Amino acid sequence: MHIGFLGLGNMGAPMARNLLKAGHQLTVFDLSAAAVSSLVEAGAHSAASPAVLAQADVELIITMLPAAAHVKSVYLGEDGLLAHVRPGVTLIDSSTIDPLSAREVASAARQHGNPMLDAPVSGGTGGAAAGTLTFMVGGDVADFDRTQPILAAMGKNIVHCGDAGNGQVAKVANNMLLGISMIGVAEAMALGVALGMDAKVLAGIINTSSGRCWSSEVYNPFPGVLENVPAARGYSGGFGSDLMLKDLGLASEAAKQVRQPVILGALAQQLYQTFSAQGNGGLDFSAIINLYRKDAEA
Amino acid sequence: MHIGFLGLGNMGAPMARNLLKAGHQLTVFDLSAAAVSSLVEAGAHSAASPAVLAQADVELIITMLPAAAHVKSVYLGEDGLLAHVRPGVTLIDSSTIDPLSAREVASAARQHGNPMLDAPVSGGTGGAAAGTLTFMVGGDVADFDRTQPILAAMGKNIVHCGDAGNGQVAKVANNMLLGISMIGVAEAMALGVALGMDAKVLAGIINTSSGRCWSSEVYNPFPGVLENVPAARGYSGGFGSDLMLKDLGLASEAAKQVRQPVILGALAQQLYQTFSAQGNGGLDFSAIINLYRKDAEA
Amino acid sequence: MHIGFLGLGNMGAPMARNLLKAGHQLTVFDLSAAAVSSLVEAGAHSAASPAVLAQADVELIITMLPAAAHVKSVYLGEDGLLAHVRPGVTLIDSSTIDPLSAREVASAARQHGNPMLDAPVSGGTGGAAAGTLTFMVGGDVADFDRTQPILAAMGKNIVHCGDAGNGQVAKVANNMLLGISMIGVAEAMALGVALGMDAKVLAGIINTSSGRCWSSEVYNPFPGVLENVPAARGYSGGFGSDLMLKDLGLASEAAKQVRQPVILGALAQQLYQTFSAQGNGGLDFSAIINLYRKDAEA
Amino acid sequence: MHIGFLGLGNMGAPMARNLLKAGHQLTVFDLSAAAVSSLVEAGAHSAASPAVLAQADVELIITMLPAAAHVKSVYLGEDGLLAHVRPGVTLIDSSTIDPLSAREVASAARQHGNPMLDAPVSGGTGGAAAGTLTFMVGGDVADFDRTQPILAAMGKNIVHCGDAGNGQVAKVANNMLLGISMIGVAEAMALGVALGMDAKVLAGIINTSSGRCWSSEVYNPFPGVLENVPAARGYSGGFGSDLMLKDLGLASEAAKQVRQPVILGALAQQLYQTFSAQGNGGLDFSAIINLYRKDAEA
Repeated sequence: MHIGFLGLGNMGAPMARNLLKAGHQLTVFDLSAAAVSSLVEAGAHSAASPAVLAQADVELIITMLPAAAHVKSVYLGEDGLLAHVRPGVTLIDSSTIDPLSAREVASAARQHGNPMLDAPVSGGTGGAAAGTLTFMVGGDVADFDRTQPILAAMGKNIVHCGDAGNGQVAKVANNMLLGISMIGVAEAMALGVALGMDAKVLAGIINTSSGRCWSSEVYNPFPGVLENVPAARGYSGGFGSDLMLKDLGLASEAAKQVRQPVILGALAQQLYQTFSAQGNGGLDFSAIINLYRKDAEA
Repeated sequence: MHIGFLGLGNMGAPMARNLLKAGHQLTVFDLSAAAVSSLVEAGAHSAASPAVLAQADVELIITMLPAAAHVKSVYLGEDGLLAHVRPGVTLIDSSTIDPLSAREVASAARQHGNPMLDAPVSGGTGGAAAGTLTFMVGGDVADFDRTQPILAAMGKNIVHCGDAGNGQVAKVANNMLLGISMIGVAEAMALGVALGMDAKVLAGIINTSSGRCWSSEVYNPFPGVLENVPAARGYSGGFGSDLMLKDLGLASEAAKQVRQPVILGALAQQLYQTFSAQGNGGLDFSAIINLYRKDAEA
Repeated sequence: MHIGFLGLGNMGAPMARNLLKAGHQLTVFDLSAAAVSSLVEAGAHSAASPAVLAQADVELIITMLPAAAHVKSVYLGEDGLLAHVRPGVTLIDSSTIDPLSAREVASAARQHGNPMLDAPVSGGTGGAAAGTLTFMVGGDVADFDRTQPILAAMGKNIVHCGDAGNGQVAKVANNMLLGISMIGVAEAMALGVALGMDAKVLAGIINTSSGRCWSSEVYNPFPGVLENVPAARGYSGGFGSDLMLKDLGLASEAAKQVRQPVILGALAQQLYQTFSAQGNGGLDFSAIINLYRKDAEA
Repeated sequence: MHIGFLGLGNMGAPMARNLLKAGHQLTVFDLSAAAVSSLVEAGAHSAASPAVLAQADVELIITMLPAAAHVKSVYLGEDGLLAHVRPGVTLIDSSTIDPLSAREVASAARQHGNPMLDAPVSGGTGGAAAGTLTFMVGGDVADFDRTQPILAAMGKNIVHCGDAGNGQVAKVANNMLLGISMIGVAEAMALGVALGMDAKVLAGIINTSSGRCWSSEVYNPFPGVLENVPAARGYSGGFGSDLMLKDLGLASEAAKQVRQPVILGALAQQLYQTFSAQGNGGLDFSAIINLYRKDAEA
């Protein structure tokens, strides 16, 4: 299939490569000439602007952009995709943005005759490279069924979450819970160790008890409990604290829009903001435990 | 074995019954005559006071009391166990109390020549009746090994957590994390539904993603997601909000004693306090989601 | 002076009336025909659109709008003020919006040759009617000096806060502190009374001690402490909880934009959101004490 | 009058000196021989133990001790004051402890025939030396009236707060509000400055607006706003963060005892705990603003 791809950043570039590897024809656009030429070397065509890309003979366009402002501009701007794309072309936005913005863009696309899906991902740059991302997809189920094989070239877990915007809802809700859980695990581990327990023994008990969660079992923030996690390598790699901060900001903003309280969610956002302001935004998000450990070097 | 058992409340009574069923000889004490006579009918002997029980020919004494003040009084009081028990008798306190109080009592017992274990449980009254409790045990490993078969008559998961007090540490750390996770799940589910998602679909996504935890998978607070949980029956039964509030209070108190911050833990305590002050302390602790649901009847 | 006035809501209408009373000539615009005709009866001219108003022979335009989206649309929209106003006309926006949006609009105005001031107010509808508002003004000091006499027709306290946007900064910082203080007073009063103190005695001590603040002295939330405050009349009138919620939302949004933690501020926002979701958004913001009083009827 | 004085620490010693200066006869006790001999040099007699002091011919005994455990031990212990003091001698405890402990001791004193007042102070070591402390006094009004002249030798503001324990209630409620207000001012000032305002201008606006409070007006935490405050001298002197942490701990403990939520109060406690765990417990409590300032050196 001939696919258009906009946004060749840390996530978008490896995703686009996986589409090429799966045999698709690709036309790409990015503001960075270097990012574009790297994809062109791998076999993609390039377009000089979103408008040009929209007018190429693509059947599907995928976008992967930093924030809602970029998404709105690329889709709804005067020289944006909707102003130039042929009706019937399917649009998939894989950016992580707030659900209401996603619905606004999807509604404009629908009016223009373009099926649209929001399909934010989880799995990080590692998952993007390995083609093992999870896609949380909002939109018509028929559009979902039709595009699932294409998304499957970039991810291994493609989940339909309901109508337009619900992919974003699922991501924002899950990641807010993740941020809360991680801080909760950090507090529980730091408290237990401060009270004299061995970290590994404590983690073992939590993981067979009602405190069990992904952050304690798979991604424990206390150094020495697990191998091959960021806590085992000085919190490098992984999912950055500033990315968690961004997602918590989306959650509290979406909550505000629907007048829904998220008390622990908002506090988790502020704790990551505090941690980031202290210069730690580039560390993996499990490093938040250093806020709680007197003996930590941070 | 001849075992002394003090404290025949909602938890202690079924635990004592399971010891009788396992063939042990039991001498019991409780302030409630009704509680005592019910156990006597089941085959136990009764003692008129802790002092009398301590002087009976028991090899092991188990206590199950409401709070640290009772534990200190029963063990350390002028007419308490340590003033009357024969050195060498093993002491097991299954009450849930703060770790420092547990260590204080264990240290006094040791000085008196009595091995002592702290062995708080999880699993609730259902687990106590079914003999499927989890015991988190602190104390010498030899004492742990020796008493494990007796605890196994009351529970199916008997875990050694390290030295004296560490059973309490494990419980307090796990339950603080549980309280945080439950509120986190409540916020995430309420937010997702307020933003237009189906609760069951959202729970399914969370349970295969990084937000996955015991509170989302096994005990989801949103009505209609799971059967056979308190949320499916108006939040009756289960683990009461006031019991969670007590455990969160122990966590923040223990944290204060070792000058350890527990930011989300303290906020979770206050949210359960708010919920309890609104008259909901008797509801299962997953009912905290009603703080967040505009459409909830509570 | 001939002044244009856009936005004749609960605040804007009485402000415009005070300008008429002070002898100014007024041309007004509002989407509500009723609001416009009421001002016309009082002596104002009306304009059919912001564009028409901009083209009238006004020397100064004042806007009083609900949120940043309206302000951006009215000033920056295709048919907005800047597209039609003559360079040199001074623009004053008295809406309460986030500082960065205020600076964006002021910068566009400056480029177009129009001096612009942000001048949000405090004092509520009562202060608007009585002409006793406080204006917090950001922009060039010369523009401030020149327009102060006009603002003085609507308020009694006109403060220069620095460059463009700083009026909004001052308001957002002050009102975030106000929200925190009010909840703090609510907690302290509720705690003291729950512990057995008389509310009036406690307020007296606080007001001569280090806990003293505007919320305890002038606007105490506990019923019976002060007369002529919302707490004395069932929390009617005053500054609505939903307005406080809006201002706390602006504060946390502005904080996010500059990556500044506001931990208590964000929690205050969530508590007002919780209170509002329980149906209390229309009550005065001091009613938040009902979240803390078991004996309160709310 | 012949007065007994127990507890000659940083606060107690200067208070005792002021009683001597006012012409009273003093018999003192402290575990520190150095503290005792310093007072003896100033004219006091010394007693070898609390029991001996109680049996001296004193008409009034004042105690100034670190925490509730010491107060209970000194008054209620086997060799404590109540076991040895003559009925009729008035007892005044100026320690800062939780209200329920204060009431327990006062009730025991009353049963023994001794009028008792709880009279915690504010004003710090500076106020203790200058004799300008504030005394918040709980107990019978007749006892209050009778002892006021004696307290007036040590303080300038002697306030009756109601029945036994209410002195502690007033202090705990006021200081919890103070901790919340200080963090609120810290957040508001840091936010305003991060958004581009001058700190002094912002403080001026807050101090004439609804955010006005003791912490903004008299004790502003932002350096450069006020002279002669800890913020002007690197946060040395003043009221230490660890003392604020202790008082916030008393507040949340007292709240727990009466099942009263204190949401911001508990969060303030955790923020001071975090600040203290980072090594800042010895700094004045206004230094908490360094948690929020990216440019701060701390």
